[in-house]
Amino acid sequence: MKEIVIGIDIGGTNTALGVITRKGDILSETSIATDQYPNAAAFVEELARQIKNQVAMAGYGYKLAAIGIGAPNGNHYNGTVEHAPNLRWDGVVPLSEMIAAHFPIPVALTNDANAAAVGELIFGKGRGKKHFVVITLGTGLGSGFIIDGHVLHGHSGFAGEFGHTNVYPDGRRCTCGKRGCLEAYVSARGLKQTVTELLDASLTDSALRRYRSEELTAKAIYTAASNGDKIAQEAFEYTGSILGRQLADAVAVTSPEAIFLFGGLAQAGDFLLGPTREHFEANLLNVFRGNVALLLSGLNGRNAAILGSAALAWQTLGIQAHHNV
Amino acid sequence: MKEIVIGIDIGGTNTALGVITRKGDILSETSIATDQYPNAAAFVEELARQIKNQVAMAGYGYKLAAIGIGAPNGNHYNGTVEHAPNLRWDGVVPLSEMIAAHFPIPVALTNDANAAAVGELIFGKGRGKKHFVVITLGTGLGSGFIIDGHVLHGHSGFAGEFGHTNVYPDGRRCTCGKRGCLEAYVSARGLKQTVTELLDASLTDSALRRYRSEELTAKAIYTAASNGDKIAQEAFEYTGSILGRQLADAVAVTSPEAIFLFGGLAQAGDFLLGPTREHFEANLLNVFRGNVALLLSGLNGRNAAILGSAALAWQTLGIQAHHNV
Repeated sequence: MKEIVIGIDIGGTNTALGVITRKGDILSETSIATDQYPNAAAFVEELARQIKNQVAMAGYGYKLAAIGIGAPNGNHYNGTVEHAPNLRWDGVVPLSEMIAAHFPIPVALTNDANAAAVGELIFGKGRGKKHFVVITLGTGLGSGFIIDGHVLHGHSGFAGEFGHTNVYPDGRRCTCGKRGCLEAYVSARGLKQTVTELLDASLTDSALRRYRSEELTAKAIYTAASNGDKIAQEAFEYTGSILGRQLADAVAVTSPEAIFLFGGLAQAGDFLLGPTREHFEANLLNVFRGNVALLLSGLNGRNAAILGSAALAWQTLGIQAHHNV
Repeated sequence: MKEIVIGIDIGGTNTALGVITRKGDILSETSIATDQYPNAAAFVEELARQIKNQVAMAGYGYKLAAIGIGAPNGNHYNGTVEHAPNLRWDGVVPLSEMIAAHFPIPVALTNDANAAAVGELIFGKGRGKKHFVVITLGTGLGSGFIIDGHVLHGHSGFAGEFGHTNVYPDGRRCTCGKRGCLEAYVSARGLKQTVTELLDASLTDSALRRYRSEELTAKAIYTAASNGDKIAQEAFEYTGSILGRQLADAVAVTSPEAIFLFGGLAQAGDFLLGPTREHFEANLLNVFRGNVALLLSGLNGRNAAILGSAALAWQTLGIQAHHNV
C-alpha cells in the first residue's frame, strides 16, 4: 500500500481538499463551501465525508497516512482555530481533535501562511533552504518564516504575523484594530484603498474611475496597469515601496536566504515586484544587500494551498517528501 | 580535573575576559585595551597570553575546555569579525581560527548581543525558556533572538539586527547609513539626541542645559530625570514609546515568551521601562496582549558580557550549564 495524505485549506468562503502523494502529485481534489455550515461540528461532519470520498476516488492501493490543515488563526501547538474573524465558528475550535475523531492518524494544523511556507519548503523553491520567508498576498497579508528548516511558531504558536507590523505610526486603520499595519497597505484590500486615495487626490484620467468602490478588484487594477493606466501603476508602485521597505526589516531580524511572494496579488508580476525589489535593496543593511533573493513562489497556482497543507502532513510523518524532478 | 571555559567580550575600547565554571562562577577576570593594538594579530598575541595567565590564576585542578567570544559584527558560522566599525581591524578577521592556533579546543564566536542572549538562556532569566529576545541598550542597540532554545543566526550569520529596523521613514540618520533606524532613537546616542532636540524646541528650564553636547551622557540624563527634570523625563518617555512600539512588531513576527532589556540604558529603570511597557502593550496584537513579559535582564551587572561568552562556550560543548540555585 502506497501512503498518501490529505491536504486541506480552509478559507472563509471555500475549503479545498485533495489527496496528495509523497512527490506532491494531486490524485484527486474537491472543495466545500465553508460558510454554508452553521458551526464547526457540522462543517467537520461534511469534511470527514469528503475526505473518505476523495481517498476512495484516488483508487486502490493507497493508505491514508496523515491529514494536514491550513486554517486562518490556526494554532499548530494546540491544533485549534482560535477566534477566526472570517469563519462562522465562535471562540477556540479544537479542529485537529474533531477531525482525528474520524480518522485515527496524525492530524497537523497551522495557519494558512505557515502551510504555504511548508509547501514551499517541501514542494517549491525552498527545497534545500534552511532560512526563508513566504509572504502570502491575498485579501490580507500572511507570512510564514522558515528558521533552521522549520516553521517558526514561537511561544504562543502565533508567530509570523508580519502583516501586523507597523509601517506608519497612526496610519491606516487595520482590521485587527491597530493602525498603520503593513496589511492595511499591502494586500488586495490595501491596494484598493490606495487606488481610491490616489483617485481622490488627483484629476488624472483613469479607467479605474469607472468602478464603484465595492466593484474595484485587485485584478481590475492589474488590468488597468497593464493598459498603461497611470493611477493603477502608481498604486502598485506605492504598494511595492512599502512592502520592500518592510521586508528589509524582516531580513534585519531573521536573515533569510530568500523571500517568496505567494498568492493573488503576487500575480501582478513586475508591477509589484519591480518597486518591491527596488525599495527592498535600498533599505537593506550593507551586510545583506545583494544577498537575499526576492522571488515569486514556486507554488503559485490553484493547488498551492492544499499542497502546503499536504506538505505539513508529510512533515508530521517525519518524511522528507520530494517533488518530481 | 574540573572543566572551565574562558568568556571574552570584545569592545571598541576594552576587552574583558574571565575564567568561568559550569555553574557560572567567575574564578578570575581581567581586561586589555582593545584599541592599543595596531591590528588583530597583535591583539590576539596579547589575548592568548592573558588567557594563559587567567587559567593559571584560577588555580590547580582545572582544565580549559572551550573559549567563547562576543564581538561586534561577529559571525557565528565563520568565526569571523567582519568590517566592525568600532575596531581598528580591517576587513574580515578570522578571529576564532587565530585564537584556536594558540589553544587546541573549541572556540565559538558570535556578536555581543547574541552572546548576551545565550548568557540569559544559560545563566539568567531565560533558563527553561525556548523563545525570548534580549535587547542590549548601550551606545547602540543590539538584539539576540532565542528561537526554539537556540540563537537565531539566520542564513548569513547576521540575524538579529533589530536595531536597524525602521521606526520612521526618512527619520534620523543612523551610523549604518540608513535613516530612521530604531538604534538612532533607542540607545545612549539616541537618548542624547532626543534631549538636544527637546531642549532646542522648548524654553523649559532644565539642568541638562548646563552640559555641552559632547559632555552629555545617558547617566546625566538619568540623574536629571531622578531629580524631577521635565526634559529628561520626556526624553525617556519618548525613547520608551518608540522602543515599546517596535518591540510589539518583534513579537508579531517571533512570538517570544519574554523580552529582556540588558545594558547601561536598561539601568534607567522605570523611566524607560514604564513608557516602554505602556506602548508595548498598546501596540500588541490581541492574541499577544498581556502574554509577553517585558523585564530587565537577569545578568545586568559588570560581568554580564563575559558570562554570555562563557555560556556560548559551554553551549558549544553541548553542556547545559546550570547556575547556582
